[in-house]
Amino acid sequence: MAGLFITFEGGDGSGKSTQLDLLVAWLVEHGHRVLTTREPGGTELGDELREIVLHSRGHIAPKSEALIYAADRAHHIATKVRPALESGEMVVQDRYFDSSVAYQGVARGLGADEVKNISLWATDGLVPDLTVLLDLDANLGRGRLTASRTRYDRLEAEEQEFHDRVRAAYLEAAHAEPERFLVLDATQPVDDIATEIRARVSALLA
Amino acid sequence: MAGLFITFEGGDGSGKSTQLDLLVAWLVEHGHRVLTTREPGGTELGDELREIVLHSRGHIAPKSEALIYAADRAHHIATKVRPALESGEMVVQDRYFDSSVAYQGVARGLGADEVKNISLWATDGLVPDLTVLLDLDANLGRGRLTASRTRYDRLEAEEQEFHDRVRAAYLEAAHAEPERFLVLDATQPVDDIATEIRARVSALLA
Repeated sequence: MAGLFITFEGGDGSGKSTQLDLLVAWLVEHGHRVLTTREPGGTELGDELREIVLHSRGHIAPKSEALIYAADRAHHIATKVRPALESGEMVVQDRYFDSSVAYQGVARGLGADEVKNISLWATDGLVPDLTVLLDLDANLGRGRLTASRTRYDRLEAEEQEFHDRVRAAYLEAAHAEPERFLVLDATQPVDDIATEIRARVSALLA
Repeated sequence: MAGLFITFEGGDGSGKSTQLDLLVAWLVEHGHRVLTTREPGGTELGDELREIVLHSRGHIAPKSEALIYAADRAHHIATKVRPALESGEMVVQDRYFDSSVAYQGVARGLGADEVKNISLWATDGLVPDLTVLLDLDANLGRGRLTASRTRYDRLEAEEQEFHDRVRAAYLEAAHAEPERFLVLDATQPVDDIATEIRARVSALLA
């Protein structure tokens, strides 16, 4: 039996990492084998590409940026995620193609459909069983981030308006696929959010 | 007036570099400003990606490889080739999307149309004014290469059959676009090939 593929999406400071860790701990407690991973990165090649795209000092052409994410994704899914799913592991992943669609496709204006289609080609059409979207006003998210970090990466450093477009794009993606998405208000208490995520995952496991 | 965009294609050992250099020297002699460039590489970002894709020791998933070439191309065309063409420079380039179609699309079996479409998206549809294809039996080309080098890169190290598929793919691309391609037998004397290339470029300039 193939494992479930669960992705977490949301803007900076939305609490993705916290909720992802809580879900993984809960799954492990319940006897599941779990691969915890992320994009960009998650493989040796991916870490090299992640370093280039997030921390390179020079300008990167927008379509080049989008294609580097897609290259990372192709390798990550083929060599790590698919083998895990096929062996029955659960895969819990920080960011997937919904990030590319929101950040590059919509916020950078490269085209949501084009960016999504490239990701689907890259991954031989792998779509998550569940995508948890932690929705948060971009201003609030960035306030949280500033309190916890001293440096922004290339995308975090974008303007407020860019992050507003990202949020709107995520909500539109969720609206288009209500079966796949669980949209949660990220200003709720951490435990309440975790409870809602567990309920949805339990239903999928049943 | 925009400059001409001329690309050179062909298998390993087909004499691309020699003919490219001869054409550039001739153009410069005739008073043209010329940008000489190549893919993968040609920019700082491109050199980092080229290093990863040609010399990384680990396995790279085939679609990831194709997307890294596309990312390199997007950045190279946007930041270097288009600005040069728009300023009236001639651009003479070693390899372009016909290489991706032949090597990744056909020889690796990823799909010629899909790979070409990704390149066209990456470059906002930039097609060369002229593509010189130096056609050579793959065995002969590899014999020349072995004589001149001690190490093969990732693609050069592929099997004979792979390089036969590359050659067939190039010839098919040329057959589909006879106006854009100049196909030359790479076993002819160097000067004869150079003369044919100059004649075609002269006609385009007239």
